[in-house]
Amino acid sequence: WCTKEGGDKVGFGVCEGKVLPAISNLGTPAHANICRSDSKKDNYSHFKLYGHWKSSSAWRVRTAMAAKAIPYESIPVNFLEGEHKSDAHSRRNSMMQIPVLEFVNTGSGETVRITQSMAIIEFLEEMFPNRGGTLFPADPIDRAAAREAAEIVNSGIQPLQNLPILNMIDSGREGREGLTGKDFGKLAIEKGLFALEAMVGKQRNSKGKGCGPYALGTFSPTLADVFIVPQLCNARRFCVDVESLCPTLLAAEAAAAQHAWFKESSPKEQPDHPSSM
Amino acid sequence: WCTKEGGDKVGFGVCEGKVLPAISNLGTPAHANICRSDSKKDNYSHFKLYGHWKSSSAWRVRTAMAAKAIPYESIPVNFLEGEHKSDAHSRRNSMMQIPVLEFVNTGSGETVRITQSMAIIEFLEEMFPNRGGTLFPADPIDRAAAREAAEIVNSGIQPLQNLPILNMIDSGREGREGLTGKDFGKLAIEKGLFALEAMVGKQRNSKGKGCGPYALGTFSPTLADVFIVPQLCNARRFCVDVESLCPTLLAAEAAAAQHAWFKESSPKEQPDHPSSM
Repeated sequence: WCTKEGGDKVGFGVCEGKVLPAISNLGTPAHANICRSDSKKDNYSHFKLYGHWKSSSAWRVRTAMAAKAIPYESIPVNFLEGEHKSDAHSRRNSMMQIPVLEFVNTGSGETVRITQSMAIIEFLEEMFPNRGGTLFPADPIDRAAAREAAEIVNSGIQPLQNLPILNMIDSGREGREGLTGKDFGKLAIEKGLFALEAMVGKQRNSKGKGCGPYALGTFSPTLADVFIVPQLCNARRFCVDVESLCPTLLAAEAAAAQHAWFKESSPKEQPDHPSSM
Repeated sequence: WCTKEGGDKVGFGVCEGKVLPAISNLGTPAHANICRSDSKKDNYSHFKLYGHWKSSSAWRVRTAMAAKAIPYESIPVNFLEGEHKSDAHSRRNSMMQIPVLEFVNTGSGETVRITQSMAIIEFLEEMFPNRGGTLFPADPIDRAAAREAAEIVNSGIQPLQNLPILNMIDSGREGREGLTGKDFGKLAIEKGLFALEAMVGKQRNSKGKGCGPYALGTFSPTLADVFIVPQLCNARRFCVDVESLCPTLLAAEAAAAQHAWFKESSPKEQPDHPSSM
């Protein structure tokens, strides 16, 4: 079966993509994203994602685009070389950050831009509730928990280990000893992942035997996984001992690595990923 | 008129509260929050908000509770005296932060807790779409802009000027010269408010003459105002020259100061606010 845009489950053979048997009624099938709505009827089209293979915030949005099965053009903005500070990019995003999602309002013909990964992902869910799969659990309390876990990463960890912030700390030191930007980032990641591990553990315990492999014990990835997976990758870059600190999050990461949405959004699958790495 | 839970506009005399005449169809009337749903029918009850009069994140949630006309018990957690690090509070919130919203699921009798201001506010909107007013604009692009502005504060500014972070920077310096925690916080606020002023200015310009007094040019406060108002208060504490930096945000703040939701959520109206200040 697959799900029809704006409607309920429809019969075999109605989807544009290949039809798979249902694998579970406890979550979205791993390949739900092959079921696409008729894009001609969409209110928005011509999606472009300004991002970078190494940006954890862009990675979140790529996973959400994969979950919603929205085709898009990937436009790299090399923040490692300062390209995000260009006039062209600051017109796209006053915060001079990535990602930026750009698209055309098919009614008015206007070009629209949205920044901030959380705002973009909420927009995609609101606009395409029945397209592809969903990162938002059906139960409102579970949905709140998914947003909570995502925000622990989004506002509690990632901003504190972001490159411009680390540079600000290092430049303020002007060659003196003391806390380096990298020390600061590592401490912030450790504090945040420790709390997230506890929060996620509590959620999973409450599910007991009915616990699925993803972060919040679901059988399909949620917003929580979308934010946790790229953050774990950053943690390793900062030499955080993730094996000791957050084993539950690592198990969720291993499950996500097998999922089509995460395979599609993986940094190494992006057009700007260096072939030498 | 007023709005009925789960339904459309209902006639005069149906609300529990005093019925006011409609004042505008361009936004939520200032006193829409007097129209309460029948609380006996609610799925959730006995709301408690763990917060503090001086916390900007708790202030955001207080405004959302006022917008949704949800009565709650206010429980101060004095983070200035380290009370957020207590065992009792870390059981409520693994990040050891405020706010925490606690309530009872009236069906199961279970106590539920949600942390992270953004997750709480989204939950309130999802659970009570037709109760009180709304902080979410009807148009999906406007709604994305409101979340975008809120996230610039939520993940782009506030985490970088949060007390534990400033303490971490100061303790890392161990008495040496260089960038202090307060310098760091001030720089982060200035960078963020500068970008937010540009983003909000662009949104308002696109509305032209049909521009309302709130941050995104609406005639009723949105999520953007809920996050901007407390942040401006923090900015002044860090001696940021807000008059030069963000005049448009200040105008929105002045409009919000006259609005019932913000009057109710104001720090000085909270039970733990020192009477001497």
